[in-house]
Amino acid sequence: MKIDILTLFPKMFEGPFRESIIKRAQDKSLVEIKIHDLRKWGLDDRRTVDDRPYGGGSGMILRIDVIDAAISDLRSKIKDLKSKIILLDATGEKFNQQKAIQLSKLEHLILIAGHYEGVDHRVHEHLVDEVISIGDYVLTGGELPAMVVIDSIVRLIPGVVGKEASIVEESHSKPGYLEYSQYTRPEEYKGWRVPEVLLSGNHKKIKNWRQAG
Amino acid sequence: MKIDILTLFPKMFEGPFRESIIKRAQDKSLVEIKIHDLRKWGLDDRRTVDDRPYGGGSGMILRIDVIDAAISDLRSKIKDLKSKIILLDATGEKFNQQKAIQLSKLEHLILIAGHYEGVDHRVHEHLVDEVISIGDYVLTGGELPAMVVIDSIVRLIPGVVGKEASIVEESHSKPGYLEYSQYTRPEEYKGWRVPEVLLSGNHKKIKNWRQAG
Repeated sequence: MKIDILTLFPKMFEGPFRESIIKRAQDKSLVEIKIHDLRKWGLDDRRTVDDRPYGGGSGMILRIDVIDAAISDLRSKIKDLKSKIILLDATGEKFNQQKAIQLSKLEHLILIAGHYEGVDHRVHEHLVDEVISIGDYVLTGGELPAMVVIDSIVRLIPGVVGKEASIVEESHSKPGYLEYSQYTRPEEYKGWRVPEVLLSGNHKKIKNWRQAG
Repeated sequence: MKIDILTLFPKMFEGPFRESIIKRAQDKSLVEIKIHDLRKWGLDDRRTVDDRPYGGGSGMILRIDVIDAAISDLRSKIKDLKSKIILLDATGEKFNQQKAIQLSKLEHLILIAGHYEGVDHRVHEHLVDEVISIGDYVLTGGELPAMVVIDSIVRLIPGVVGKEASIVEESHSKPGYLEYSQYTRPEEYKGWRVPEVLLSGNHKKIKNWRQAG
């Protein structure tokens, strides 16, 4: 899978994408992630990317012409790939595990991580395939949402997570389903004991207990 | 506000916390964030922090004794502060803007960003004040969720965001409320025009249009 990210803060991605599972997936060439500074497509000498909202109000709004130029450029470099353009925005459709599974089957994604609440609405309407929000809270930018979406997708790509079982058994794969409570050593800590059934060695009882959880 | 983060991947926080609004808030001393490597409290020579789940299954579970040692250490350094300990976990209560507002009024937070689906359940029951999930999707670790929670909280601290108005007007402050569509220049792009009312200069009409939006 190829992922292109458009952002005003390319450096934000350095830590998360150089560590943990996303790094491993890149090292194994299972995913190729490119971070692009949106200012590259900025206007005039000052590389302007945003402007004040029509009708008044606070905050700066990302311009449609700048985003369109960036998208066109990126699209011209990929051909014949199953591709989607996604805007991360507070007003978008709520992201969930089903959506992560769908997106993990694509060959190419462009994620636009702009001002989280200030992107010209014509971008929503005309330039992107989907507008996604990661939850009912306000963030300063779409960068963390882009990282969240990528983390959830990349770990679903076959070969990225060691044991496929971890993915099958986990929370959220089925709507409304949450994983059972987990315990490890020590058996007792400050008087708090692991449930006896888990120490019983009786696989049928353990399975029943976990399903009842 | 002081924030302590417990994590197995301290380097993941480097990019996000050195850029954007979180950096500004730290520079202005409005928030003090410390990243702690959970392995500092790991057991034996190998600094072990996790073990296999009782009753079988895949994945590794973070140990309660390691987390308890870390929390005790951090708590001993803060006194008389309004404080909360939060575990980021897929099984937690869903995070939202109301929760962000509540947490932004505290003086101290400890965020535990462990294996996102494998923390000994006694930690949930006995050691933390709240268990928070940022949405119905599975991630590889609690690091990105911790960053999301911090971003949403820090921007609510007075003095962090330039214009207070941006916070008052925005999405999600009231449940079910979403901000109106925003537009900026150019007025017309590829035949797509900004709604005429926003160009009218008639403040009452603009207000009505935005409320109806």
